[in-house]
Amino acid sequence: MTWPNAAVLVIGDEILSGRTQDTNVGTIARFLAPFGIDLAEARFVPDVEAEIVAAVNALRARYTYVFTTGGIGPTHDDITADSIGAACGAAVEHHPEAMALLAARYKPGDFNERRQRMARIPLGGTLIKNPVSVAPGFQIGNVFVLAGVPKIMQAMLADVAPRLTRGVPVISRSLTVNLAEGTIADGLAAIQAAHPSVSIGSYPFFSQGGVVSISRTSGGTTLVVRGRDEAEVGAAAGEISVLARQFGATAEAELKK
Amino acid sequence: MTWPNAAVLVIGDEILSGRTQDTNVGTIARFLAPFGIDLAEARFVPDVEAEIVAAVNALRARYTYVFTTGGIGPTHDDITADSIGAACGAAVEHHPEAMALLAARYKPGDFNERRQRMARIPLGGTLIKNPVSVAPGFQIGNVFVLAGVPKIMQAMLADVAPRLTRGVPVISRSLTVNLAEGTIADGLAAIQAAHPSVSIGSYPFFSQGGVVSISRTSGGTTLVVRGRDEAEVGAAAGEISVLARQFGATAEAELKK
Repeated sequence: MTWPNAAVLVIGDEILSGRTQDTNVGTIARFLAPFGIDLAEARFVPDVEAEIVAAVNALRARYTYVFTTGGIGPTHDDITADSIGAACGAAVEHHPEAMALLAARYKPGDFNERRQRMARIPLGGTLIKNPVSVAPGFQIGNVFVLAGVPKIMQAMLADVAPRLTRGVPVISRSLTVNLAEGTIADGLAAIQAAHPSVSIGSYPFFSQGGVVSISRTSGGTTLVVRGRDEAEVGAAAGEISVLARQFGATAEAELKK
Repeated sequence: MTWPNAAVLVIGDEILSGRTQDTNVGTIARFLAPFGIDLAEARFVPDVEAEIVAAVNALRARYTYVFTTGGIGPTHDDITADSIGAACGAAVEHHPEAMALLAARYKPGDFNERRQRMARIPLGGTLIKNPVSVAPGFQIGNVFVLAGVPKIMQAMLADVAPRLTRGVPVISRSLTVNLAEGTIADGLAAIQAAHPSVSIGSYPFFSQGGVVSISRTSGGTTLVVRGRDEAEVGAAAGEISVLARQFGATAEAELKK
């Protein structure tokens, strides 16, 4: 059985230069989870039209939805609308509703030609509301074009939500134990093999400030069970708990959703 | 003129689920900058061999270097070595030096079969030292395979550094002004057009806790000039400073490297 899935395309030199830390991928992943939509891939590309076009076309052909972030402002380096138009073969024009929204936003004289660029939308696109700074995003086909500024991007998701097809949400259970992952790796593999409908992730961590060691229990491991069948997720998590106790786990710090 | 470039491939379900925030892309970007190596693309893929193979092959054919992060631990979900081997057509075997390093790390009896998996390296690969937790990364061709845990990944970069070809580093100047970007967008575009060897990025921000507005100057804009010719970068930054003052910028918060 397949479920709706999605990809995120992060657009912007400032992310790839290491100047700005992206957080939008994680925000979109957590937004999509309750809809049962898996985030299956993310890509970061620079402010280069050919790169954006190639990535959008690869992703929109493959995934149910594509979310882009960044490049929809008024300056010369904001080339997302034109790039999406080029990718979709759609002319990019001033959208009357976006023009009206933006015209109302600015004082007379301030709504200059450059700001009017923020109303340019590929033909066939529908607007995505921006309750923070007005300049809209847009949807064309299965591509949602969002702002890059995290709080604006997040606010736009409210207008995206009703447009999404729902799948069955993934349930996740997480168990943190004071054991090195190598200690229980064999047992974990057996549990994974016995429950093919779930995925079990093993994430080691190390004690803060202490001696970092994977052979002693100065740190520990968080085990995450994910799947769409609650009984299977619960069964696998229960077996992991038993396994951890067999190996002397003394601090099951959390068993949470 | 072209310069060495690179891509990062982030491997791991925990990043795409939104459970874990990636920081390795930015760390690698900032590590590469002094070498004059541009980070040109990043991709996040799940713990699925076919996805890793396809992404590695696409990226290693296109960029000077590829850095992967994640999936080199001892558990069943650590499939990076096998996936890279499959991508490169190389058998994956226990590497004698890695076996010796790891055997010395564990108490007798603790170096079990699962932990020995961390010594499995594609044939032809050379080890990358891990001064934090011993289990090595590896290089095969132009692909560097690193840990996912940020402090281990970062420590491994020290052993990568001497293997990299150097280009001319990008110089960057940043100027923060209390102007909305739409106000100066026209002038910025003209400066960009006059200095094609630099790239000018415009990044709006909004005042903390205040009324968010792009039509008033409650926030501001950071302008970033990047390029390899110091004189050109300086000239463009100087023109931006003049432009900002023309529009009444009163707080040039920073003009920094």
